[in-house]
Amino acid sequence: MNSILVVGSVALDTVKTSAGSISDGLGGSATYFSLAARYFAPVQLVGVVGSDFPPQHRTLLSERGIDCSGLTTAKGKTFRWSGKYGKDAGVAKTLATHLNVFKDFKPKLDEAHRKAPVVFLANIDPELQSEVLAQMRSPALVACDTMNFWIDSKPEALKELLSKVDIFFSNEEEAEKLAKRPNPLQAAEVISSWGPSVVVIKKGEHGALMKIGSTFYMFPCFPLPDIKDPTGAGDTFAGGFLGYLASCGVYDDVGHLKRAMAYGTVMASFNVEDFSTKNIEDLDRDGIDERFHDLLDRMSVPRAEDLLKARRAVPA
Amino acid sequence: MNSILVVGSVALDTVKTSAGSISDGLGGSATYFSLAARYFAPVQLVGVVGSDFPPQHRTLLSERGIDCSGLTTAKGKTFRWSGKYGKDAGVAKTLATHLNVFKDFKPKLDEAHRKAPVVFLANIDPELQSEVLAQMRSPALVACDTMNFWIDSKPEALKELLSKVDIFFSNEEEAEKLAKRPNPLQAAEVISSWGPSVVVIKKGEHGALMKIGSTFYMFPCFPLPDIKDPTGAGDTFAGGFLGYLASCGVYDDVGHLKRAMAYGTVMASFNVEDFSTKNIEDLDRDGIDERFHDLLDRMSVPRAEDLLKARRAVPA
Repeated sequence: MNSILVVGSVALDTVKTSAGSISDGLGGSATYFSLAARYFAPVQLVGVVGSDFPPQHRTLLSERGIDCSGLTTAKGKTFRWSGKYGKDAGVAKTLATHLNVFKDFKPKLDEAHRKAPVVFLANIDPELQSEVLAQMRSPALVACDTMNFWIDSKPEALKELLSKVDIFFSNEEEAEKLAKRPNPLQAAEVISSWGPSVVVIKKGEHGALMKIGSTFYMFPCFPLPDIKDPTGAGDTFAGGFLGYLASCGVYDDVGHLKRAMAYGTVMASFNVEDFSTKNIEDLDRDGIDERFHDLLDRMSVPRAEDLLKARRAVPA
Repeated sequence: MNSILVVGSVALDTVKTSAGSISDGLGGSATYFSLAARYFAPVQLVGVVGSDFPPQHRTLLSERGIDCSGLTTAKGKTFRWSGKYGKDAGVAKTLATHLNVFKDFKPKLDEAHRKAPVVFLANIDPELQSEVLAQMRSPALVACDTMNFWIDSKPEALKELLSKVDIFFSNEEEAEKLAKRPNPLQAAEVISSWGPSVVVIKKGEHGALMKIGSTFYMFPCFPLPDIKDPTGAGDTFAGGFLGYLASCGVYDDVGHLKRAMAYGTVMASFNVEDFSTKNIEDLDRDGIDERFHDLLDRMSVPRAEDLLKARRAVPA
């Protein structure tokens, strides 16, 4: 099976939402990504934590088959983020960011990591993302994410990175800011001209868009009337997306990429149903596939010739 | 073929968007609805205009096969609305509303109108909507829309109406206000408990939701990087939706309702590509079906067993 290398943050998050709160919960982009992707393919996690990182968190990741040999421990404190969400659970308000040991993170890949066919460069400094990529031995698929901070501070390094990337994941607001365009469609147009053959724009509760070539494909969100904590939704989306592709070993087919969008949607939907990583730690693959098929059923539109075969009456 | 009766406003709109502006353009909910629905089924329009209503507008409607025998002319001025849209083209800011002759609108249906099997009660006073409905001879399908003004001023009359309606169309913000719930899923839950077996929530550029029984079906918007004028999008959506259902004569099948959502999406997408009704006056049905199939292709996700049959490579 094709493995996935992910390089990104492992953090302790303090989060408040209208449904409750959590202090120093397991978080970080690489964490969410790994926990989602591991249902589909072997995952190698590269990151750094401080000496205060609770050993049970490392155990949690390792026991779920995630290769944590690249998760180093540095002297100092683990990266901490705290934020809160308003009523609509859309955008987080960051209350505090303490990079701590993450500030000096300089990922060095060992031989086993360099050979991974799929690599996800989660949102770290784009210069570091490029350095990681330079250490890889011709991966079949390179994907990355970023965030507002890097769009503001290192746009040129980010563009340079994008010229070497196959798939770019971004949320709507960040894509518009990066491309200096007023809507996600125009933004994806500009960003794809910089390099990525696939641009994925995540719109939270409004679903996601994927641009391949000159065509946009649209995906709704899985309908959940109650969301507990949206933290990590984007990274679990990417985890389900790339995990599915790695499990197939097919990276250039529109049909596979559409299914990857649906798996990303499903993994993100599980994640937001509880705080921190709680709800994605112990799913089973059958449950994931059940929601996947549920999603496909809800968003499918029958062709005319299939209408009478599958009559389904509206309940009275 | 099953005909559709629509009762609502016929107006002259003055609209400003980032793409330009128009003064006293043909508008109104019944106008947009009729022009969209007439591609699918015969339409009977009931409304009122003033003596200043340009004859060419009536001719435009009549020449397109819309039965305007119920469009009366009253002494006074035609209903006028003016509004402007910000950069994101999402929500209109109303600059002025002059009800004029519409203020005294008391629709009286003649015998041909009463027999229509499908009726759309566009957003007029909910008491009037109920009065119109009371004049109908057991229609097979009753649908309605509303707006903020009636939600604020006559919520009880609106609830009373909803208990007699099969399909309720609403935009997201209005549904949340009416149901006093923070998101469209919870709002649809509450509204469906009042009566409608189908609740459709329109989310503009983010697509639309349909609740049938306890299940939500999600639909994306057709991707358009440039929108000229969103006025009338909701009513053209309803026109495509109900027009398609009337053309099939099937009102209680989930598959048909999903296709109706897609036709609604397509008609709204044509409408927003130009000011006023310009872009929906002279479409042809082949062009509509072409975009319908384009939409279905963009939102379809292949089943695993179909993946290898239909390989489509990502363009380099």
